[in-house]
Amino acid sequence: MKCIELASPSSLDTIRVVEREVPRAGPGEVLMRVHASSLNFHDYLVATNIMPAPSGRIPLSDGAGEVVELGEGVTRFAVGDRVTGTYFPRWIDGPPTPDKISVMRGEQCDGFAAEYVAVDAETLTRTPANLSDVEAATLPCAGLTAWRALFVEASLAPGDTILIEGSGGVSLFALQLARMAGANVVAVTSTPEKMEKLRLLGAAHVLNYREQPEWGKAVTALTGGRGVDYVVEVVGGDLTQSLTALRLGGRSLLIGALSRQPITYRSLMAIAGNRSVTGLTVASRADQEKMFRAIEISGLKPVIDRTFGLEELADAFRHQASGTQFGKIALAW
Amino acid sequence: MKCIELASPSSLDTIRVVEREVPRAGPGEVLMRVHASSLNFHDYLVATNIMPAPSGRIPLSDGAGEVVELGEGVTRFAVGDRVTGTYFPRWIDGPPTPDKISVMRGEQCDGFAAEYVAVDAETLTRTPANLSDVEAATLPCAGLTAWRALFVEASLAPGDTILIEGSGGVSLFALQLARMAGANVVAVTSTPEKMEKLRLLGAAHVLNYREQPEWGKAVTALTGGRGVDYVVEVVGGDLTQSLTALRLGGRSLLIGALSRQPITYRSLMAIAGNRSVTGLTVASRADQEKMFRAIEISGLKPVIDRTFGLEELADAFRHQASGTQFGKIALAW
Amino acid sequence: MKCIELASPSSLDTIRVVEREVPRAGPGEVLMRVHASSLNFHDYLVATNIMPAPSGRIPLSDGAGEVVELGEGVTRFAVGDRVTGTYFPRWIDGPPTPDKISVMRGEQCDGFAAEYVAVDAETLTRTPANLSDVEAATLPCAGLTAWRALFVEASLAPGDTILIEGSGGVSLFALQLARMAGANVVAVTSTPEKMEKLRLLGAAHVLNYREQPEWGKAVTALTGGRGVDYVVEVVGGDLTQSLTALRLGGRSLLIGALSRQPITYRSLMAIAGNRSVTGLTVASRADQEKMFRAIEISGLKPVIDRTFGLEELADAFRHQASGTQFGKIALAW
Amino acid sequence: MKCIELASPSSLDTIRVVEREVPRAGPGEVLMRVHASSLNFHDYLVATNIMPAPSGRIPLSDGAGEVVELGEGVTRFAVGDRVTGTYFPRWIDGPPTPDKISVMRGEQCDGFAAEYVAVDAETLTRTPANLSDVEAATLPCAGLTAWRALFVEASLAPGDTILIEGSGGVSLFALQLARMAGANVVAVTSTPEKMEKLRLLGAAHVLNYREQPEWGKAVTALTGGRGVDYVVEVVGGDLTQSLTALRLGGRSLLIGALSRQPITYRSLMAIAGNRSVTGLTVASRADQEKMFRAIEISGLKPVIDRTFGLEELADAFRHQASGTQFGKIALAW
Repeated sequence: MKCIELASPSSLDTIRVVEREVPRAGPGEVLMRVHASSLNFHDYLVATNIMPAPSGRIPLSDGAGEVVELGEGVTRFAVGDRVTGTYFPRWIDGPPTPDKISVMRGEQCDGFAAEYVAVDAETLTRTPANLSDVEAATLPCAGLTAWRALFVEASLAPGDTILIEGSGGVSLFALQLARMAGANVVAVTSTPEKMEKLRLLGAAHVLNYREQPEWGKAVTALTGGRGVDYVVEVVGGDLTQSLTALRLGGRSLLIGALSRQPITYRSLMAIAGNRSVTGLTVASRADQEKMFRAIEISGLKPVIDRTFGLEELADAFRHQASGTQFGKIALAW
Repeated sequence: MKCIELASPSSLDTIRVVEREVPRAGPGEVLMRVHASSLNFHDYLVATNIMPAPSGRIPLSDGAGEVVELGEGVTRFAVGDRVTGTYFPRWIDGPPTPDKISVMRGEQCDGFAAEYVAVDAETLTRTPANLSDVEAATLPCAGLTAWRALFVEASLAPGDTILIEGSGGVSLFALQLARMAGANVVAVTSTPEKMEKLRLLGAAHVLNYREQPEWGKAVTALTGGRGVDYVVEVVGGDLTQSLTALRLGGRSLLIGALSRQPITYRSLMAIAGNRSVTGLTVASRADQEKMFRAIEISGLKPVIDRTFGLEELADAFRHQASGTQFGKIALAW
Repeated sequence: MKCIELASPSSLDTIRVVEREVPRAGPGEVLMRVHASSLNFHDYLVATNIMPAPSGRIPLSDGAGEVVELGEGVTRFAVGDRVTGTYFPRWIDGPPTPDKISVMRGEQCDGFAAEYVAVDAETLTRTPANLSDVEAATLPCAGLTAWRALFVEASLAPGDTILIEGSGGVSLFALQLARMAGANVVAVTSTPEKMEKLRLLGAAHVLNYREQPEWGKAVTALTGGRGVDYVVEVVGGDLTQSLTALRLGGRSLLIGALSRQPITYRSLMAIAGNRSVTGLTVASRADQEKMFRAIEISGLKPVIDRTFGLEELADAFRHQASGTQFGKIALAW
Repeated sequence: MKCIELASPSSLDTIRVVEREVPRAGPGEVLMRVHASSLNFHDYLVATNIMPAPSGRIPLSDGAGEVVELGEGVTRFAVGDRVTGTYFPRWIDGPPTPDKISVMRGEQCDGFAAEYVAVDAETLTRTPANLSDVEAATLPCAGLTAWRALFVEASLAPGDTILIEGSGGVSLFALQLARMAGANVVAVTSTPEKMEKLRLLGAAHVLNYREQPEWGKAVTALTGGRGVDYVVEVVGGDLTQSLTALRLGGRSLLIGALSRQPITYRSLMAIAGNRSVTGLTVASRADQEKMFRAIEISGLKPVIDRTFGLEELADAFRHQASGTQFGKIALAW
């Protein structure tokens, strides 16, 4: 079978397609024919050696496909079941612990960039019936992070308003999940084209932060002086604008730090503003199962920017690095 | 001005339309030109002396209209604002207390069955922009009860499944609010006509309890063996079927007792089933404000069975008693 | 080694002490030298065939002892560690599911009534340093049930008041845990001797339900007309007295049904009273770990009525059936 | 009567004792004979014109005393009742809103530095029976802030561990309240004398941050590598040490910013650490009522550093500014 291997130290130029034996399903494992994956920031950090992995590592945390063989003792799935992987294979349920988040697929253990993988059956979930494998493979990292922010850490309810920043994977999923839940969305982005696309996806208000660098106050005005209930924070650094946009008692859900700067804000904005900043990273298998039920009921379709082949992985990463995409970058094979 | 007065003891035959002076707005009050109301079970109990009110009581807890005069010190509203009343005028915020729920409009104090009422400005909320007065006037009792069940007592999230019983006001609002929130709805009702209407409103599965008296197991089967997450219980009495329909760890939200029988169920269904039964009655002004934001964002439209004039109140109550309605019985003047 | 076996159908008269080979720790297992256990109602139901188990079953869900051998791959414990078992070996974390509660130790799998047991290392927790094995062995069923009621289902806080019924294992643990948390306790019991003992353990008010069959109102009066925040319900049947004792918005935590009657109460007590009844059964390993930290910090000591030897198990069950005990019935060997 | 007035701009040198007419209780008000107050950081900021108040303002947010006259319509209290004021007179219940926290006693309206004050009866609470007026007057600002941090924003449970910084009012109350709730306390402070006093109050571990500037790791080690569940943050600025001390998934409860520096921390500590920082400021009357019940049940006694007379207010502020106190600075008259 074909699979992708990283060198050590890894770089986009040393990503290689190799032939390996098709693995067998050991006790408790299933053999999965993988059909699709998608790119996340974490995958990029591993592939470019910022988060170094050992030589020979198969990358990519996202993966969807089909069960083709059952290892001894597996009752959770049957051959032919469509399945989607989880980001943290050791996090089944409950709140995070150091042990549960110690292994990320594609970094501390092999990922899904292969025609076949043998994985513990406990680390897979059924694919929603309304999604193709490519669509399902966009969800385990970015989609589930947005889900946890809104429905595990927060209890987003109809009538709430969230703010999203930019149009990366987590931000778009947050937008779509919030609309699915009867909530309102305000978006800040950088170009008229992205503004239009965000409106089409259901954002009630879209601002251009280049034109309105003091967008915090503008958001407050757009919400009748009240402010938004939640910010899905992906930029980090100086939170002044996003905390200004938050209502008194509102919460910033901190899931990314694209600015690569330390978090900073005036203490009064938090204390007198009764505001909180909650850091979080992906979620459990139980959370993914619940998100998948929600997606099946609502018919939500992930936004896919472009789909590459497995052998084009380095090009796909280069497209990711360009920052021009709108929606997820997928891989299918 | 015209208004409705109850006799004591009250009956549908002694409901009378009378002329009174238009009241003036005292300190902290607004004078409201009432345009609409709707009927709830509580109104019927008061009108038929099951919950006796003093002679001369103006009935009806629901009301919507317009501010026409401001009393001294009122800053919460301006003349011309469209406003909707609250069921518990003493419950502004926070959880219920004996004091907060001691006064129900139309029973312990006058209600909205009048051309003009002078009411404490703190007990009114702004009418959602997308609703007519008649539509808004269907919400403060039945709509808010469904809202509290799903979003205050429960934290209904996308992907959850609720079960509703019949097609009374609270049940239909629960259906609509659940759909607004990305949740799934199973309904049990009694006639093919109502089954069809419930499907059109978005119920994924509808059962006829006359044909399937053991509907609890049928619901479990329809949900893939899992059971529903919540039951909005309006019948009460023997909860065996509705607790059977509930998943392990699920919750029954008990808001009505149409059966007029004591609640009863086998203890093992609760203990081994980890199930709970939560009683509740309407909600606070703050909850109504949040529900109204949700309705404005989502564009939800209440289902109205029929609209009567103020002077036809006794007929409207008789229609309510017939049990043939689907949706709220409204009044407009 | 010595161990206890049940016959099928089981009865107290056919409980037998047998010799078996000391088991070996398989992969993922530890071999545990068991030193103590205690009796719970569930053990009695199994031993008397009300909840039938297969012939040869080793009974008793509670157990504490020492790790004497590690199976392949075990890193969670070292030889010499003091460990205590869990009631639901498949429930590690998160909320309950049908699968997690499908196996109860001593019923669907062997229990701790043996000198040595080989058990999955994931199903054990470290014994609190301040407890003997006998003390620790009183906690996994009764103590953890009280813990989950007060701190998982409820969020008991200082200043809250709970009501306990009688002086069984769960009730006494609820009393002690509530006092540890700064909460107030009202107890209802049947004899002056038990009243005195409950006062010594920290109950602020103790009533004799034989002298005050309408004890619900008496409790309300004792709490200044407010009612208690929580009832730890172990009797079940007609909940009129215990719901009367609950404040508006209060919660009954239903963990037992000694009356063997169906739960019943007037719907108005729940609806107008905004009261809920939450059924629950024991808890997860993660909850046990947290409870053990609390016990270690506070120095709580379980109340032990009497300690029997392993070979006296039938006599211990007969003592349990007498209902004369105050505190847990323990076994040590 | 005697009372204290601030000049505008205010300074410690222009605080003056003046004679005024005893006020009368208007409608809804009670006349309160004030006997005690205490100093908070907010009072200092007002008195030193950092938070400017109008000329003639009576300072001090805390106050306890006795009801001596009832205004028209007051049923909440009787003459002779012992009462304690609230910090936010407009915040009765529920979560904070801009309106509810718009008025702080002693800044936007008159405070308690007077022999008599006429105040809205809704803004007072009954004094716990076990506290003197001086003791009760230490609680409405500092005690209630600690209470909200631990029991409203967090749900502190037995077995949790909190970290406190220094020995200011909020920190000591957090220590005492946590111990009342069965929780563990780690404290960091600056002198051997304060270390000893913190141990006597029940802190399990006390560190000297001057000797251990990298105290975050030391705290992690003291908690068996796990970290604390909550930090009660009063210093602000660079949160590196306190977030290092927090376990994965732990929460910083940000109530003060003595460092006067912006909050800053590396985003990875929040995101990969799943940690949150929650700002908050005092709480509602309903929260104060609940805290007072807890104090009455537990017998908690506030730590008072020193008590001044009303006319010594400027000296009391100078003592506060010295930073040498351990516990609250009280005033009695």
